[in-house]
Amino acid sequence: MQNCSRFSYRLLSTMYKNSGTSLATLSATEIKEWINSFDTVLTDCDGVIWVDNDTLPHATEVINKFIENGKKMFFVTNNSTKTRPEFVTKAVKMGFNVDVDNIISTAYLAAQYLKNIGFTKKVYVVGSTGITRELDAVGIPHTGVGPDVLEGTLADAVKNFTPDPEVGAVIVGFDEHFNFIKMMKAASYLDKPGVIFIGTNTDERFPMPDCVIPGTGSIVNAVTTCAERQPTVMGKPNKHICDILEKEYKVDPSRTLMIGDRLNTDIMLGKNCGFQTLLVETGIHKAADFAKSDDATAVECVPDVYTSKLGDLLPYL
Amino acid sequence: MQNCSRFSYRLLSTMYKNSGTSLATLSATEIKEWINSFDTVLTDCDGVIWVDNDTLPHATEVINKFIENGKKMFFVTNNSTKTRPEFVTKAVKMGFNVDVDNIISTAYLAAQYLKNIGFTKKVYVVGSTGITRELDAVGIPHTGVGPDVLEGTLADAVKNFTPDPEVGAVIVGFDEHFNFIKMMKAASYLDKPGVIFIGTNTDERFPMPDCVIPGTGSIVNAVTTCAERQPTVMGKPNKHICDILEKEYKVDPSRTLMIGDRLNTDIMLGKNCGFQTLLVETGIHKAADFAKSDDATAVECVPDVYTSKLGDLLPYL
Repeated sequence: MQNCSRFSYRLLSTMYKNSGTSLATLSATEIKEWINSFDTVLTDCDGVIWVDNDTLPHATEVINKFIENGKKMFFVTNNSTKTRPEFVTKAVKMGFNVDVDNIISTAYLAAQYLKNIGFTKKVYVVGSTGITRELDAVGIPHTGVGPDVLEGTLADAVKNFTPDPEVGAVIVGFDEHFNFIKMMKAASYLDKPGVIFIGTNTDERFPMPDCVIPGTGSIVNAVTTCAERQPTVMGKPNKHICDILEKEYKVDPSRTLMIGDRLNTDIMLGKNCGFQTLLVETGIHKAADFAKSDDATAVECVPDVYTSKLGDLLPYL
Repeated sequence: MQNCSRFSYRLLSTMYKNSGTSLATLSATEIKEWINSFDTVLTDCDGVIWVDNDTLPHATEVINKFIENGKKMFFVTNNSTKTRPEFVTKAVKMGFNVDVDNIISTAYLAAQYLKNIGFTKKVYVVGSTGITRELDAVGIPHTGVGPDVLEGTLADAVKNFTPDPEVGAVIVGFDEHFNFIKMMKAASYLDKPGVIFIGTNTDERFPMPDCVIPGTGSIVNAVTTCAERQPTVMGKPNKHICDILEKEYKVDPSRTLMIGDRLNTDIMLGKNCGFQTLLVETGIHKAADFAKSDDATAVECVPDVYTSKLGDLLPYL
């Protein structure tokens, strides 16, 4: 009976695949059957469960209900400025019943990636302590974090730069101290044969009311240009997350739901990994964005299901 | 008779067009006829007439002979860190008989571009005094040049940033003080409707023995990513230089020779503008580079003629 039921869930998830179905058009029974069609839930954070330091309506209850009902739960974030314990502190304070094993961050992925390939050298980090603490946790030494301001002329800086021969990888993440000197050092290390190049993520920017905050993608593209090399990118929509989930957590992609507010990162990750997908309209993108028939990327990123907010699922859990 | 002779020169220049002909395979008569087929000479500087502060063999004599023989001569450089008078000082010190009208730099082109469109607002400059002095010369106000280091937290910097409402353009050039704060300000200005976006050039990098110096292209790509806009690029291989030459100096493209050491900037500029082209092998690229049949860009950039060094022309002038 259970196998038969599993079979119908698979059909169900196939039925919604890439269909852009509105949750509001489904019956309570259909929604419950859909919820039963996945065992693992990945969710983006900002714009899905919270915005800055405010939780979104009923998002806490939905996430906690998923966990109570036995779903494997992962918060998946491209933000490289916090360690997993720092994410847990924030989430727990907001009422989410999660611990460090429920968090997948790009800083964690970068450290795991190097650990898994048996990396034994030092990392030059363009980024924050979010990255260096994850490297510390797996015993990988690093250099470069923090301010590194140009003193005197550029010619002096070039003359005074003695590359550390121990450096065997460069990780580029979000770094508010990013500058010309760090770019020069990163490109110089990346010019040596065999040096590994990791980018945490490629988010372009964070728009604010009167200001545009550059995203990690801007820093990665600067380094990529002068290094004349492409990095291995850890973050969404890269399939790399799926490899870690399958290897470390034995997750079945077809019975996994990816929830997000961005088509080109969250929903694209789901598609790249063979997950089911749910778009919530509390962040960057709305249903109207994937419905644009003249935008090839938007059409590529149609989610299986969409709804106005994550809290809409609460009555069915 | 003169018309008839002009006609044969045109045939001659057409004959060598994109042929990658070695100067060494031509007779003295053929070389002299080829030299007579152009009235205007554009030359790249670094790697063609000098390397850093050393002139290349006989380059000074060749350039001065061209000028004596009545050719219009232009030094065309993507370097945005010097004004035209500063280039003249360097060139004259090295023995070149040039003045400010013989220099076309990207900083000059950017200032001319804004002047020609009747720009009356202020420019936010990511770059050096090479740019701001050219803006001063055409009476365009500017802001942003020099160090702008992050003090305190990024949140403070965002809170303290009051965009200047007079800014109507952003110029991005080479800036050794480039950092996250400048990138944030540039992207924020570029988010306002109607703000003009100019990149001086897109050179990726300058390799040194133990170090890679990022080029302007790295800075431009960083800003382009977070601004989510493409700039108007002044430098080689952009056709923009040709527009200025035709408009301000009445140059005939078919009777113009572009000399350079880089296929993807110098020779490509020649092709984009309908100039004749000469590759000299004293800088970045050699004949072997355009002969690579498996490299689409290389094949696109086959010069008309190539020779080992500019000084090879001296016996024919």
